[in-house]
Amino acid sequence: MHGLMMQRPLLISQILEFAAGNFPDQEIVSRATEGPIHRYTYPEMAQRTRKLANALKKLGATEEDRIGTIAWNTYRHLEVYYATSGMGAICHTMNPRLPAEQFIYIVNHAKDKFIFVDLTFLPLMEKLYEHFPDVEGFIVMTDEEHMPQTDLPRVYCYETLIKDESDQFDWPEFDENTASSLCYTSGTTGNPKGVLYSHRSNVLHALFALAVPGLPIDERSVMLPVVPMFHVNAWGTPYFGLIAGAKMVFPGPGLDGESLANLIEDEKVSDAWGVPTVWLGLLGHMRKAGKKFSTLKRTLIGGSALPKSMIQEFRDAHGVEAIQGWGMTEMSPLGTIATPRPSQMEGDWNEELRLRATQGRLVYGVEMKIVDAEGKALPHDGESQGELLVRGNAVISGYYENPEATKKAMDDDGWFRTGDVSVISPDGFMEIVDRVKDVIKSGGEWISSIDLENEAIAHPGLAEAAVIGVRHEKWQERPLLVAVKAEDSDVTREDVLKFLEERVAKWWLPDDVVFVDELPHGATGKLQKAKLRDDFKDYTLPTE
Amino acid sequence: MHGLMMQRPLLISQILEFAAGNFPDQEIVSRATEGPIHRYTYPEMAQRTRKLANALKKLGATEEDRIGTIAWNTYRHLEVYYATSGMGAICHTMNPRLPAEQFIYIVNHAKDKFIFVDLTFLPLMEKLYEHFPDVEGFIVMTDEEHMPQTDLPRVYCYETLIKDESDQFDWPEFDENTASSLCYTSGTTGNPKGVLYSHRSNVLHALFALAVPGLPIDERSVMLPVVPMFHVNAWGTPYFGLIAGAKMVFPGPGLDGESLANLIEDEKVSDAWGVPTVWLGLLGHMRKAGKKFSTLKRTLIGGSALPKSMIQEFRDAHGVEAIQGWGMTEMSPLGTIATPRPSQMEGDWNEELRLRATQGRLVYGVEMKIVDAEGKALPHDGESQGELLVRGNAVISGYYENPEATKKAMDDDGWFRTGDVSVISPDGFMEIVDRVKDVIKSGGEWISSIDLENEAIAHPGLAEAAVIGVRHEKWQERPLLVAVKAEDSDVTREDVLKFLEERVAKWWLPDDVVFVDELPHGATGKLQKAKLRDDFKDYTLPTE
Ligand SMILES: Nc1ncnc2c1ncn2[C@@H]1O[C@H](COP(=O)(O)OP(=O)(O)OP(=O)(O)O)[C@@H](O)[C@H]1O
Ligand SMILES: Nc1ncnc2c1ncn2[C@@H]1O[C@H](COP(=O)(O)OP(=O)(O)OP(=O)(O)O)[C@@H](O)[C@H]1O
Ligand SMILES: [Mg+2]
Ligand SMILES: [Mg+2]
Repeated sequence: MHGLMMQRPLLISQILEFAAGNFPDQEIVSRATEGPIHRYTYPEMAQRTRKLANALKKLGATEEDRIGTIAWNTYRHLEVYYATSGMGAICHTMNPRLPAEQFIYIVNHAKDKFIFVDLTFLPLMEKLYEHFPDVEGFIVMTDEEHMPQTDLPRVYCYETLIKDESDQFDWPEFDENTASSLCYTSGTTGNPKGVLYSHRSNVLHALFALAVPGLPIDERSVMLPVVPMFHVNAWGTPYFGLIAGAKMVFPGPGLDGESLANLIEDEKVSDAWGVPTVWLGLLGHMRKAGKKFSTLKRTLIGGSALPKSMIQEFRDAHGVEAIQGWGMTEMSPLGTIATPRPSQMEGDWNEELRLRATQGRLVYGVEMKIVDAEGKALPHDGESQGELLVRGNAVISGYYENPEATKKAMDDDGWFRTGDVSVISPDGFMEIVDRVKDVIKSGGEWISSIDLENEAIAHPGLAEAAVIGVRHEKWQERPLLVAVKAEDSDVTREDVLKFLEERVAKWWLPDDVVFVDELPHGATGKLQKAKLRDDFKDYTLPTE
Repeated sequence: MHGLMMQRPLLISQILEFAAGNFPDQEIVSRATEGPIHRYTYPEMAQRTRKLANALKKLGATEEDRIGTIAWNTYRHLEVYYATSGMGAICHTMNPRLPAEQFIYIVNHAKDKFIFVDLTFLPLMEKLYEHFPDVEGFIVMTDEEHMPQTDLPRVYCYETLIKDESDQFDWPEFDENTASSLCYTSGTTGNPKGVLYSHRSNVLHALFALAVPGLPIDERSVMLPVVPMFHVNAWGTPYFGLIAGAKMVFPGPGLDGESLANLIEDEKVSDAWGVPTVWLGLLGHMRKAGKKFSTLKRTLIGGSALPKSMIQEFRDAHGVEAIQGWGMTEMSPLGTIATPRPSQMEGDWNEELRLRATQGRLVYGVEMKIVDAEGKALPHDGESQGELLVRGNAVISGYYENPEATKKAMDDDGWFRTGDVSVISPDGFMEIVDRVKDVIKSGGEWISSIDLENEAIAHPGLAEAAVIGVRHEKWQERPLLVAVKAEDSDVTREDVLKFLEERVAKWWLPDDVVFVDELPHGATGKLQKAKLRDDFKDYTLPTE
């Protein structure tokens, strides 16, 4: 027997109209790509979004069309999010830092019909457009005054396009399972794979995010999504921020430490969201400048592991709570969040820090299990390591037009294989040991490259550290630490090993330390260990 | 094109398992019907709920069965909520204060298969059971020690029933639109009508509740639902409280001012939920005892209008924020909440108080419009009065087995007619003028009985006030104020009229004031104006 309740679809356009109607004086502030700070209110944003939807319709965009974006986090990017999804088209956000061949692959794989381009990335488009014969138009996200000369064909200026359109638009109603947006994975472990979100999954994910304990967001919050809008919808911030009625602050192209620090102070940011590498730069800037954040309360950090030393620095130097989150493009992305329970925050700080350095406990709407190589479920005993599988309303059931990757990713019961190895404690805290592909198999036992990196990075003489497995006669694989020295540091191999000796089990100790000028990073700033393994594939470990 | 996201149903059993897994040390505290305070943790509650599901299955309860409850707010009632809905049956909560004939109507209309009964209501069941020939069993919500002698046939003891059952239960998965629970409206304006909630509507409603600005609920919250679990699922508190991981405090049968006050202090309640009449008693007790709440932060008040004087007393005497909510059984119930925006809380308190005395602004997931007698939409200009219509994911599409009431309630576009007359301001605050049936039509203009009552009740000499329309030769209808004097008060008709003269428009002034010992209340404590109108139908107004 069905309940007798209305069947209303969960749609992204409803977030827009709800937010504009209920928070009429709330602000959206952006560092514009053109330079200056831009600010307007929720209702103004909604009006311009409706104009854009009208303009897109006139251009010929229609339901199911993929519409690409190559853009910073700004108000115009936000308008594109809502206009495209709202009208039933699919917002396809792209990472401008992708290698050219991956970029070309993605645009053609998605079959984008239009592409929105920020000024910054116009040169990139000019270089690549010939590979995109099917793109019907490029819309440069600026006004007439800033519109540059360009060889790009079929080009439009954003502001000119929307100027004379009506600010009324009847958002269509359709099945909530309709695709709303498309985002490819970071490409850390191989070629990026397409994730096709639905209106339902995005709206539910936003509601789940607002129910996360220890992460309150409301009208008094000032949210700064530093995580790019081309990386898993900036972790959902453009959706749940608007449902909560938060003031939104978009950093545009200003991602260096100084620009971010100024923006945070000027706009009184309370909650910032981003990957660890961004905060490295920001903390470094604050340290050098001898400054302290005066309004920042919390920062949510995910995408790769959050080292204890960073949690500690945020706390000691700034009184800021650094909260680790674990997620995936395939999960919209929230999976777990490492906010300790109130009872776990009353005792010893070191124990609390240990919990905060795990990947945390479940977000509502997600289930998880760990399994061994045969797919058998392992106990949540804080000891057993296995591949992590997840299930939930905002988790993929397959990749976009990629049956091969889909087959590998889904188990027989419909769970999604994360490719992460993890341990789950009896009270529900999950810890990522490593990626299945990165874990170091030494004599039948596993060594976590992530754990070693997190310990190494606490050494003040190191700026960055990566650990990879290198072939070994006797042990199959042994860890090699590849590190970048901190500025002006004269740290040695021996210093580092000595430092680690006191912190990790003896058999975990890297067999060697190599210093390099730079480590290879993927498009979302993650270490590319596949590349590093390739670079060091003929490396011979010292034999004692 | 559909997104490629998992199709996981939104189910109530997921709330239970999520809460037990993620908040393992959180408490649920109840004043038991047997007297003492009972306390246990989320996981213990989940274990007992699974035992109960096993027991119900053995008794022969199966999917789609309606399972009635006549019970106070306690942990056992909570277990029944989750066990019945979780296994796919329908939890039918019933109001024990209903007149016998309505009670009999409801049990037979719902075709309840089993009924859970609290000790308090066993005598009621003993009196009425002969009218329920199809009920297969009555389960008394107590243990063997407290199990009384009873003539009730087919009777079971709750604790005996679950004692030897397994605490494992595989919650079935089914369509999220499956019916989960059934609740009849309060019967204020006529016979109660059945509302059949679904798993989807209840889970979404819970998520919407957690997104309401100004009403933060998390693991640090201590929630006291005084609003009965037989009244619209205690406004959803048993669902969203558990998603948020709040400490839950259930008052059981102790609803008098003193019991509530003690419970609030002993358990450090931060958030209490209930109808205005309950708080009248509580505030009265505190005033007399010369006490002040030390932990209470907020109280959410709805079900009927919240008078300004109550907001003021909560604030002045206790530093507590009294927040008005408007809702309906048909809306699960949340519709609007009167938390002013941050910018509206910076200025004059009287202006803020005015906003707090409106019914407030939309909760996510609800849309509203006002229409004139022809169904034409009226502007949201703060002036136009019309019938309020709503739409949303947790709003009914019809009444349970009641096509006649359904037909009257739904408009041609699928909106639900609330039966309330209201005004909506340009910035989204909604004010209930009156019920369509209660508004006083005086010479072509409307007078709000609610507004008049709210002004009158601020007179210290009055304990309660009701305003009804009485037939009038010239003006069709004129207002009559029927009031109960405060204890020891010798207030006169003239005092009251003088008091009102300074507060309302001249033509709104009641034509007469009549003092009575008691006003008629419905089963959820609301004024029964239909009954009052009937009592005063031959009343002749004084002619000046
Ligand atoms: N807090 C965290 N700690 C450790 N690892 C994390 C954390 N958050 C995310 N990750 C890692 O990032 C992965 C998800 O990243 P993302 O979806 O951006 O693409 P990717 O996995 O890096 O790239 P690709 O799937 O294309 O190889 C997770 O599977 C996990 O390995
Ligand atoms: N904050 C409020 N201010 C004024 N009226 C309110 C408020 N909250 C609820 N109400 C009134 O209560 C009604 C909903 O109550 P409920 O669903 O409990 O049943 P009822 O309408 O009283 O009974 P019935 O529908 O059986 O006559 C609303 O339609 C409205 O008239
Ligand atoms: Mg991945
Ligand atoms: Mg009603």
